[in-house]
Order: sequence, then C-alpha cells, then structure tokens
Amino acid sequence: MRKAKIVILGAGYGGLMTATRLQKAVGVNEAEIVLVNKNSYHYETTWLHEASAGTLHHDRVRYEIKNVIDTNKVNFIQDTAVEIKTEEKKVILENGEIDFDYLVVALGGESETFGIKGLKEYAYSIVNVNSARQIKEHIEFQFATYNTEEEKKDERLTIVVGGAGFTGIEFLGELGNRIPELCKEYDVDPQKVKVICVEAAPMVLPGFDPELVNYAVSHLEKKGVEFRIGTAIKEATPEGIIVGKGEDEVEEIKAGTVVWAAGIRGNAIIEKSGFEAMRGRVKVQLDLRAPGHDNVFIIGDSSLMINEEINRPYPPTAQIAMQQGETCARNLAALVRNKTELETFKPDIKGTVCSLGEDDAIGVAFGKKMVGAKASFMKKMVDNRALYMIGGPSLVMKKGKFNIL
Amino acid sequence: MRKAKIVILGAGYGGLMTATRLQKAVGVNEAEIVLVNKNSYHYETTWLHEASAGTLHHDRVRYEIKNVIDTNKVNFIQDTAVEIKTEEKKVILENGEIDFDYLVVALGGESETFGIKGLKEYAYSIVNVNSARQIKEHIEFQFATYNTEEEKKDERLTIVVGGAGFTGIEFLGELGNRIPELCKEYDVDPQKVKVICVEAAPMVLPGFDPELVNYAVSHLEKKGVEFRIGTAIKEATPEGIIVGKGEDEVEEIKAGTVVWAAGIRGNAIIEKSGFEAMRGRVKVQLDLRAPGHDNVFIIGDSSLMINEEINRPYPPTAQIAMQQGETCARNLAALVRNKTELETFKPDIKGTVCSLGEDDAIGVAFGKKMVGAKASFMKKMVDNRALYMIGGPSLVMKKGKFNIL
Repeated sequence: MRKAKIVILGAGYGGLMTATRLQKAVGVNEAEIVLVNKNSYHYETTWLHEASAGTLHHDRVRYEIKNVIDTNKVNFIQDTAVEIKTEEKKVILENGEIDFDYLVVALGGESETFGIKGLKEYAYSIVNVNSARQIKEHIEFQFATYNTEEEKKDERLTIVVGGAGFTGIEFLGELGNRIPELCKEYDVDPQKVKVICVEAAPMVLPGFDPELVNYAVSHLEKKGVEFRIGTAIKEATPEGIIVGKGEDEVEEIKAGTVVWAAGIRGNAIIEKSGFEAMRGRVKVQLDLRAPGHDNVFIIGDSSLMINEEINRPYPPTAQIAMQQGETCARNLAALVRNKTELETFKPDIKGTVCSLGEDDAIGVAFGKKMVGAKASFMKKMVDNRALYMIGGPSLVMKKGKFNIL
Repeated sequence: MRKAKIVILGAGYGGLMTATRLQKAVGVNEAEIVLVNKNSYHYETTWLHEASAGTLHHDRVRYEIKNVIDTNKVNFIQDTAVEIKTEEKKVILENGEIDFDYLVVALGGESETFGIKGLKEYAYSIVNVNSARQIKEHIEFQFATYNTEEEKKDERLTIVVGGAGFTGIEFLGELGNRIPELCKEYDVDPQKVKVICVEAAPMVLPGFDPELVNYAVSHLEKKGVEFRIGTAIKEATPEGIIVGKGEDEVEEIKAGTVVWAAGIRGNAIIEKSGFEAMRGRVKVQLDLRAPGHDNVFIIGDSSLMINEEINRPYPPTAQIAMQQGETCARNLAALVRNKTELETFKPDIKGTVCSLGEDDAIGVAFGKKMVGAKASFMKKMVDNRALYMIGGPSLVMKKGKFNIL
C-alpha cells in the first residue's frame, strides 16, 4: 500500500505546529510529510510590531524551519503556493507542483484594506519580516532626512497608525520606546515628533475590558500618542491621509509614515482556489476541514470559526492557530490510520496580553486582569511559550525574551 | 584699551585648529575669542564616507566642540553665519549678529555640481553628518524594500558613485565592505547588487601615482565595482542617471542610489559677502588674508592657494586646512600684539593616503609608496593624528581608530 502523502502549506504558527506534532504522531511508514513555505524561516507574527518599530532586530523574530522540524520525517520545500487544485489533489507552486492525499492550508492572512484608496500604495503594513524591516528603515530614513533639508518638514516626523486594535496598540507601545532613541540618533527635537492613532470604530481594543483599555490609552497618551477615535481614513496619499470629519467634511493629516494595522483577511489563494469564503476566510467544520473537502484542513488566519457564546468569530490569533495545529495533527494521524471519527476543535483561550512597550502591558490571564510590570512579564512568557511549543527549550534559550525586570 | 575681538567662523579642521592654537597663543587680556559654528559638534569630514556607507557610526565621526576648546578663553556660539559685512566689521548670523576686529572664515566647502541637471534634487552628497547618515539610511531602505515588492526591481540595488576622486574612491572602498553585510541583513542575493563608478575625467585619482591607482582600481574591481571612466553624467533623474556615450548618444543607468562625490567649491557665503572668488574660493595672500582685507583670514576649503611647483591649486584637504589654522593663529597673535610682520604659509604635505575599505589602502608618506595593510595602518594614524592635533591624547583615546590588524 502506498503511504499517504500529507502536504502542509505554510510554516507559520498553525503549519509549523501541525508539522512538529505530526512528525511525532505518525511513523515514517505511515505517511510522507511535506512542508512547503515561501521562506526558509518561520517568523513570529506577533512580534513583528517590535521589528517594525526597531526595538527588536528582525533576526530575533525568525528562525530557520530546518532547526525545528525532524528532517528525517518532514521534507521541507522552499517555494510559494500559487493555487490549490482540490479536484486533482495537487498544489501549483511558483517553481513546480506537488500532489497530496491530505492537505493543510496554513498560509496565514493578508492585510485587509477595505478598499480604502491609496492604502496599498502609500501605507505600510506589519505583515512579515520584509515589511517590518522596511517600516523600520522607512522611519529611520524620515528622521535622517529631516535635518538635511533647509526648509524643515515637520510632517516627516509624523507617524500615523491606522487602527487601534491589537497590532496598532502594540506598535504604538513600541514607538513610545523607540522615538526617544530616534530623536537622539538623528539629532531631532522630540517636540517635533507626532504619533497619531486613527481608528474608525468608536473604541480602542474592542472586546477588551474597559478598565484595561483606559489604562492603555492613558499610558500611550502620556508617551505622546494622539488618539483620533471614531475617525475613518478616507484615503492615503503620498503626503499622508485624508480622514472624515463630521458628516461631510474631510481633513488632511500630513505624515511621512502611515502604517496600516487595522485589518486582516484570509489568504488570496483561498478564493483563487475556489473555496467559499468570507474575506478570504473559510468557515471550517468543527474538525477543521473545509466543507465538502474531506482531505483539506484549513487553519489559522484563513479559517473562520464562530464563538457561539458571543456569536462572533474567534479573532485570528497565534494562540488559536497553534491549538488548531495540534488538533489538525491528531486528526491527520487518525485519517492516515483510516479512523473515521475526528476530533472536534475547541479553542482554549488561556488569556490575552497586549504589550504597551518594553515594560508595560495590559491583559487577562487565567481569568485575572493585570497591568504594568506583571502583565509585561506575562506577555514575555506568552511569547516564550510559543517558542517552547514549537521548538522546545532550546529554541526558547535561543530566541526567547529574558529582558525581564 | 579695548581688547581685540577675534571671531572664527566654522569649527571644521581649519577653524578648530585656529581656536585651539589661539587660546594658547594669546592671553585673556590680549583678545576676546569667539567661535561660531552651526552645530555644537565638530565632525571629521575625511571620515564621512565611512558613516555614509554605514561602516562607522556617525557619532564616531563627531565630537562636542566644548570638549576641545578652553571655554574660559573661547566663547562658543552655536549659530549659522549668513553674511559677512566687511566694511561694518560684522557678521550676520541666523539668530543675530556679531562684530569683530579680526575675522577667520573657515566655513568649509560645498558640493560642486557643475550645473548638471537634477544632481541637487536626486543625488546625495557626502558633505556633513546629516547627509552621511541620510545616505546610509537611504541605501538601507532600498535594500529593505527590495524583498517587499512582488516585481523585484534590481535597480534598487544599484549604487552609482559620481566621481573617482578621493572621496569617491574611499566611499567605494567602504561599500566593498558594507555590501556583503547589507545582503545578509536584508536577505538579498549579492549577485543582484551593482556598484558603478562614473567619472568624466579619463583617469581615476588624478595626481596619484599610476602604479597605486592601478592597485586601487584592481582592488575595487575585485570587490565588484564597475568603472565607467571618461563618462560624463549628463543628468540625474528620480530613476538614476543619464550619461554621455560616444559623441552624441546618451545611455540611462537606472539606480536606486546616486551619490555625487566629484567636486567641491567654496562656501556660498564668500560670494554673497562680495569677496572676489573662483568657484567660491578666494585666492588668499601668502599670510592667509583676503586681498584688500587686512583683518580677514580665509582658510580651508574656501581659500585658494597655488602650488607653484606644478602651477595648480593645492587640493582642499584637511591636512592643509589644519596647517593653515596653525599659521592663522600665529598671525592673529602677531596682529593683536601690533606686529606688522606676518608669517607666510607654506603647506608641508607629509603624505596622502587613500583608504580602500577596512584593511586596504594606497598612499605616499614620507616620500614612500605603500599599499595594503601598511597603507591602511598609515591611514588610521593620519586619522588619529587629526584628533591629536586638535584634542590631544584624550580625544585620540575617545574617538581614535584602533581596529589595526
């Protein structure tokens, strides 16, 4: 009998967790495992705001995939998935194609710009290592240019962050630490720097405890962040953004840097490959398979699951993607062994911590609210835990966060 | 009797040398000394190519003026000189004005673009700390952007250096060290990077020994530099440069970065203030005073002196500017003491060393040609000597170059 061939697309939190669990769960005689990823490395999506601000080097947020997989059991291919042909059971790659018996789509999400004009062209998004270091370099270039011009353009030193969700707030927290450094490095008067957070929704960090949100806003305001809540970005331009003001008016905010951190949608491959989706996310079955496809699992940012308690989708988080990876690996092992009963996925939200910079944070963990140094410590433990889950203690030692007060 | 008031404009090599020598040569009762400089710091113009390439941090190429002058004897004013009113014996500053009995103009040179279209707008010049770090950040931004674009624009990784004179060659040498680092930092294939040196003259490093020039060219070519000698830049554009090709044809060289390192002229204030000048440089008397102005000395890049032996002007170097500063200080001391016999300035060219990167160089010192590690060592000693002359051993310890093989 031919071995089942399992192909995992993507080595983010979900895909890499699937691969590392699967390599333990099935024997080499039971299945052939192939992991396909665009880069040779995995990166910590949840740390990218730090690389973007320049508070953490981008090499600290990534590690080589070969260092965490068992290369005797998992065949790693560095390539980019272009389209999934479900009928033909194969995936078109940029440099070839690969067939499968079982497929795991764990390709991560993409920035959702909601059709706002100019955002794709003129705003930066915190989406991967490449874009993170580009944001860092762009901001540094703006600061470096400021003093070279005879007529000083203060707007060079204005940074607009679009979105007061998780990524936006965490990025603002890092900027709070980074901007004093930038001012020193480039001989810039800190009074000239403006950081403006523009959010269309009427609140910051929707879904978070209001007391914690107040703590975060007040902390960031003290660090110089100006919040423009309930303000929609109408357009991004080479000079900055246009926002709505009142019913019909608009206002221009000039800014050398615009970072869009307001939305995520599923991977473009989902719709391209004919899956039924909402904003690129497939409402998966409880066993994580795509409806109508017994051999295709979709996990992470391209999957959609409803939290019945509040009748809203679960947010696209690393925590859930990793838990999905564990379930997905067990279900694949079951399928390979011709078991028909698959496990039902149920997220186990242990807590949520939102960083506010180097030594502050807000969060809820094990049902308890926390702020300040305690929450910041918890955040670093959450970050280290993600490393531990995928690469064990040695990866934590290598890439972990130990700058603990 | 009123004390004579000596105003020194500029704290570059010439101005700072004048100030530090003068503070020893005259007593507080003999003269009031005022030093005016745009920045609070002095920078090593001859090291800027390193800061521009990113091989040396820009803070390593500058130091606070207050740390090297005797503030009991020299009054430092941070301001920018706008115009010299020789008749009225005063200098208009950006934030005020200052009168003088004796004036030293040591304001340094400016980039000479020879009227080439677009150079001011689209090319960078290695002229001060601000511009150096902007070049560094610009190149890093180009490398950081490369991988973020779906359609890779290889021209982002092309650096054109206009000019194969001293600054151009030294900058190319640093790029030779820096580019492998940049490729590693931004995951860029070194094969994609191009460094092109475009020089209108038919030779590299005019005036240098041909054997040494061959050594330099061959060294840089090995590091990947492409030389386009006898090729004039006709225009700089947002996309790169247009060069002449044969008699009538032109050719476009696309480049993400164009650095103009081909010419220097005197300070704009010279012509603005009505001094007779050639390219902003005043042909000074042998005692370093401006013709017709018994109380105005002009030294450094805005002064012009002819080397009678070859009937060509001396090049605008740090070595000569510093020697001029010493003579200028002695002549000022003589004038303050009502002596009429002033000293004649005669450059004493101890040698010239051109760096080719971290551990290679070419040069002539004490009449001997040298290349490689020996020349590189000599270059670092030259750099340290400039520190020593102005700030003594403590400044050498603080800012000196000791990365000696």
